[in-house]
Amino acid sequence: MTDLVRLRGASAEVRHDGGRDFVAVEEPLEIRVDGRSLAVTMRTPGHDEELALGFLYGEALIDSVRAAGPPADLAGGVVEIAGPLLRDPGERRFYTTSSCGICGKGAIEEVAVAAPVAVAGPRVDRALLAALPDRLRAEQPGFARTGGMHAAGLFDADGSLVAVREDVGRHNALDKLVGWSLREGSLPWHSRIVCVSGRVSFELVQKAARAQGPIIVGVSAPTSLAVSLAADRGITLCGFARGDRVNVYTAPERVS
Amino acid sequence: MTDLVRLRGASAEVRHDGGRDFVAVEEPLEIRVDGRSLAVTMRTPGHDEELALGFLYGEALIDSVRAAGPPADLAGGVVEIAGPLLRDPGERRFYTTSSCGICGKGAIEEVAVAAPVAVAGPRVDRALLAALPDRLRAEQPGFARTGGMHAAGLFDADGSLVAVREDVGRHNALDKLVGWSLREGSLPWHSRIVCVSGRVSFELVQKAARAQGPIIVGVSAPTSLAVSLAADRGITLCGFARGDRVNVYTAPERVS
Repeated sequence: MTDLVRLRGASAEVRHDGGRDFVAVEEPLEIRVDGRSLAVTMRTPGHDEELALGFLYGEALIDSVRAAGPPADLAGGVVEIAGPLLRDPGERRFYTTSSCGICGKGAIEEVAVAAPVAVAGPRVDRALLAALPDRLRAEQPGFARTGGMHAAGLFDADGSLVAVREDVGRHNALDKLVGWSLREGSLPWHSRIVCVSGRVSFELVQKAARAQGPIIVGVSAPTSLAVSLAADRGITLCGFARGDRVNVYTAPERVS
Repeated sequence: MTDLVRLRGASAEVRHDGGRDFVAVEEPLEIRVDGRSLAVTMRTPGHDEELALGFLYGEALIDSVRAAGPPADLAGGVVEIAGPLLRDPGERRFYTTSSCGICGKGAIEEVAVAAPVAVAGPRVDRALLAALPDRLRAEQPGFARTGGMHAAGLFDADGSLVAVREDVGRHNALDKLVGWSLREGSLPWHSRIVCVSGRVSFELVQKAARAQGPIIVGVSAPTSLAVSLAADRGITLCGFARGDRVNVYTAPERVS
């Protein structure tokens, strides 16, 4: 890595990056199932097997944890997962970047098939939802160091943190969380709340829907397609959760 | 669209979305070349032909503007571009989301081949670089309305704005800017500065390198791979440009 030159007004400070201290690491990971290359994702190293499991679960290619193959060749940027898959992924090849989650999907209709409608879910106080991003940020060492990491957090209905995962990509962070939960045996997320650090895009709602999470909260704005999918799936989608404020875009009946 | 419920403390305000007033629109666009479906991208509608041209240029599939095919079927979410391509894209299929830019690329090596090394470029004052994000934001009506739109801006070496494009995806905004420039005949960007509204990921540096832009400035953090690629290409990569501050990660010789 190179040096960092920090300029402020007329002053300059040079810092040498000893082991990537201040930049969020983004490296390619190849996901293989039974030796077949299925996806290449740009991710922050760490929890790679969870990432692979969560990705495959989100794509409705697996429903449970299969016996893993050989140990993950992390140095080589490869994770091996043992099959069989629920269905043939077909010709689709998945190439995902640090902010990409629906690669390989050509149609929204397919998502609607894969994602089950969420259940009733908990009823949650607005102040609790508005406070989740601050709680999430307190658990983000990567963001504190680099200012460039996203996070996905799983919370109980009373606002207590269950688990958090960080990644340079929002969808990777959520995939890691899903993969962790899959291994823990704590899917579906019927009574849980998902909080993501950035904007809420279509793919994040898709992943939450697949995990049957009834409530998703974002620090920033949702996109139109995210709102549409959440409305269709009956998911409570919240955005701009900051301080004592929160916007509720869909299914506000879960917010008291 | 649904209603928006804005909660603040104990108060609640309900707003009806008359024509998607407050959510950044994200919809799929299919890019076809000579009838062959090459990519599906999740983007904000508008400047779709620029987006398609910029995407194809960034992928080194075209070098100049070809005669366009039939008028873009925007309602149908399809853009037709006439061939021929510079090379066969092979089996790779591109599916890109609102934050995804290197879909279809399996290897970083390929990028290094496609992206030419940038030239000397201008020498720019640090204060000018630090001020670019504010200038960019002043030209972002979509962000002002939704809080959820990214932007890419092209600036002259004296800091005057040349062009700006907005999109729900960072890489789309930059693709639109490249496509605009390609049509205008103003590529390469040897004397220009690119400013992007969010983090600087690998794919944004890749696109800037392909357009031979010597300086790229981000409002937020770069990733490790972005820094590596910028260093390799001789691009000046700046991040956290705010107020009177700016971090210079690579090629600081262009910053005075």
